[in-house]
Amino acid sequence: MSFAHRHLLGIEPLGPADITTLLDLADDYATLNRQPNKHRDTLAGLTQVNMFFENSTRTQASFEIAGKRLGADVMNMAMQASSIKKGETLIDTAMTLNAMHPDLLVVRHPQSGAVDLLAQKVNCAVLNAGDGRHEHPTQALLDALTIRRKKGRLHRLSIAICGDIAHSRVARSNIILLGKMENRVRLIGPPTLMPSQIAEFGVEVFDDMREGLREVDVVMMLRLQKERMDGGFIPSEREYYHRYGLDAEKLSHAKSDAIVMHPGPMNRGVEIDGTLADDINRSVIQEQVEMGVAVRMAAMDLLARNRMPHAV
Amino acid sequence: MSFAHRHLLGIEPLGPADITTLLDLADDYATLNRQPNKHRDTLAGLTQVNMFFENSTRTQASFEIAGKRLGADVMNMAMQASSIKKGETLIDTAMTLNAMHPDLLVVRHPQSGAVDLLAQKVNCAVLNAGDGRHEHPTQALLDALTIRRKKGRLHRLSIAICGDIAHSRVARSNIILLGKMENRVRLIGPPTLMPSQIAEFGVEVFDDMREGLREVDVVMMLRLQKERMDGGFIPSEREYYHRYGLDAEKLSHAKSDAIVMHPGPMNRGVEIDGTLADDINRSVIQEQVEMGVAVRMAAMDLLARNRMPHAV
Amino acid sequence: MSFAHRHLLGIEPLGPADITTLLDLADDYATLNRQPNKHRDTLAGLTQVNMFFENSTRTQASFEIAGKRLGADVMNMAMQASSIKKGETLIDTAMTLNAMHPDLLVVRHPQSGAVDLLAQKVNCAVLNAGDGRHEHPTQALLDALTIRRKKGRLHRLSIAICGDIAHSRVARSNIILLGKMENRVRLIGPPTLMPSQIAEFGVEVFDDMREGLREVDVVMMLRLQKERMDGGFIPSEREYYHRYGLDAEKLSHAKSDAIVMHPGPMNRGVEIDGTLADDINRSVIQEQVEMGVAVRMAAMDLLARNRMPHAV
Repeated sequence: MSFAHRHLLGIEPLGPADITTLLDLADDYATLNRQPNKHRDTLAGLTQVNMFFENSTRTQASFEIAGKRLGADVMNMAMQASSIKKGETLIDTAMTLNAMHPDLLVVRHPQSGAVDLLAQKVNCAVLNAGDGRHEHPTQALLDALTIRRKKGRLHRLSIAICGDIAHSRVARSNIILLGKMENRVRLIGPPTLMPSQIAEFGVEVFDDMREGLREVDVVMMLRLQKERMDGGFIPSEREYYHRYGLDAEKLSHAKSDAIVMHPGPMNRGVEIDGTLADDINRSVIQEQVEMGVAVRMAAMDLLARNRMPHAV
Repeated sequence: MSFAHRHLLGIEPLGPADITTLLDLADDYATLNRQPNKHRDTLAGLTQVNMFFENSTRTQASFEIAGKRLGADVMNMAMQASSIKKGETLIDTAMTLNAMHPDLLVVRHPQSGAVDLLAQKVNCAVLNAGDGRHEHPTQALLDALTIRRKKGRLHRLSIAICGDIAHSRVARSNIILLGKMENRVRLIGPPTLMPSQIAEFGVEVFDDMREGLREVDVVMMLRLQKERMDGGFIPSEREYYHRYGLDAEKLSHAKSDAIVMHPGPMNRGVEIDGTLADDINRSVIQEQVEMGVAVRMAAMDLLARNRMPHAV
Repeated sequence: MSFAHRHLLGIEPLGPADITTLLDLADDYATLNRQPNKHRDTLAGLTQVNMFFENSTRTQASFEIAGKRLGADVMNMAMQASSIKKGETLIDTAMTLNAMHPDLLVVRHPQSGAVDLLAQKVNCAVLNAGDGRHEHPTQALLDALTIRRKKGRLHRLSIAICGDIAHSRVARSNIILLGKMENRVRLIGPPTLMPSQIAEFGVEVFDDMREGLREVDVVMMLRLQKERMDGGFIPSEREYYHRYGLDAEKLSHAKSDAIVMHPGPMNRGVEIDGTLADDINRSVIQEQVEMGVAVRMAAMDLLARNRMPHAV
């Protein structure tokens, strides 16, 4: 197996072979997770610490379940971003934790780059659980696994990412991953919610949903990140839903077997019609959550192996 | 052993044989919990998630200790009821968690019926840890076990439940359980704190403590649930204690070996005299807490067996 | 091994042999903690509960990691000091928890003496994780282990404790421990931050840093405990740093191989110069944190052995 990385800080440093290795292992764990006995001792003897400087019940729960199922000693540290005033203090916190000899450190932080900075200071493997508008690699990997399982492949697909692209680390990590795997990515959303350096991504950009969704295989909706729109344009929810919310009519422009994705938590009636979100023939939203646990198990397993080369 | 239920949502669906099966097993666990090594692997490989939409340090701790002692991978998810605005959102939360494949889901929710609704949406076994004014089955079961151990039986006893009956799910679950086991139940409290549909319960109702306590075997005090008295009558604490608070004089009207119970946390000097609460010859309040862990171990054990018919 | 105590409530009740026994065992655990597989089953089957009535992310994390590495079932109970109005309520909380049969109870409380009081009411072993201005025994023990490892001995050393002595349980426990082990202790700080009963400690007192640090082997800085300075003198940070903050110049008055300690979290530029804090030739601050986990493992191990005399 080829996965030589010390940390999982983003999709950017990964090659296609890394991604495939990780998804293959995650697929195995997805099967395990459907068994009555889901416990393994893969990470037994190791200490996993979840440091969330930004609240996220679902992502933290996913990492916690992943670690406990693999037998790690798992610990949540509730960090309040408000109490972290200076860069030095983040480093002090990291150094303090490092001195307790954790093996796996899962970090979410509101500032882009904070997790990379922290990873330079510690001896353990660091997993980025989302940093600012930068990256959210396990989300992109779980999306990729969901697509691969539903579509039978992860290349030469036409994938639309819709909504608030500018504020979304989910979009950013997905664009990078889907590009590396040779898919055609389209971004659909209001110009005000498009990132300024769009050219570098090698994607097509649409303002109109019907036009953008035409003949795509995958429709990936995003959450409106109002909390990250500092002072900028905030659309009214009704207006937003009318133009960019996904409903059956807009979806009819995509391929007839196109799947619908959302990273959650959903704003029903804002980004997506509630009935469509629950339609198990189109929506794979629950499967995304399921693959999330599997992908995190695989990522922690691979990183732990690299730390202990003599272990199996 | 006869316990064919998928969930433990309330006492209502249980038959007397179910209750006896559960209490017998809990009695064994109560013995185990007094050993130096209290750990078993009964739930090893299973994932237990505690979702408390209402804070309860002691009930959550009891379920957490119960699960960890039986070897489950236990996880607490801090849910804020304030962030749960709509019924759909509760269901979304449940569906998301369900996709992570928990085996046992312990839920407390401020709304009556919310836990039943949630149980219909998930694949795992759901334990109701209290929903609104509806049910709190493990509390009634731990009360029953405490009574059975102290009185040597759980039938043909005369039991008074005293105080704020109207707002109490503890009272409701106890009334149902004690009725199923053929005990005589009396309710004592101010008319303003009595439920309106009292007739259906088949109980005697008293406004006067001395009269109501006459010759009873068990005195079960309730906590004043001020947080649930939305806009209604709120008695002054001094007045309440004078008329309905349990003290040695009022207790003298019960049988000479009557036991005193309280689900906790107590308001000393409001519902009960502090000295009486600490009198180990009459008060079984600490034993109730002890039986709580045992009953929760038994309930999770039985529900887990039903999920895995081939396991022992 | 000689350690006959039921609880670890403070340094006061310990003799030099107790301290040596505990540090010897902690030294072994420090070695273990640097191994890839850090997990032991020493506390398997036991229930450890952390009750923190005062927030402390780092101390709670240290106890939690220590317990999980030794295989205990570890549980955190978030207690809010604000909800604990009366002494009785603390006791009720303790009695409730006691009824759940924990084996090890780790308690931090804002009031001096609260942990001793609680220990009298419960059957399990109690570890004081800091009570008011009274004691913080595991901090003094981890400081002692750090000194012993760096200096090769824990006696006949000259040790300066600097800063806010009056509000510091860390200082108090350290003064007692270092005295028992026959070291010379100097206290340096503004007279307003010196405890009133200084004579009983058998220490030298200095107001001037340069004078006090002369030829010492160890410089132990303290955190400014502004939250405990109720109504009293609060120095300006700039003024404080100028007179009592440790920098390279002031440190030059100590022995050339003197080590620098701080219990954390640091106020950089207030109690200590940031560059000096990070100088791995002088500062042993990270090693203090590392020894913290080892000392807590040793303390819980020894207390658990005393509870189960037949176990190894």
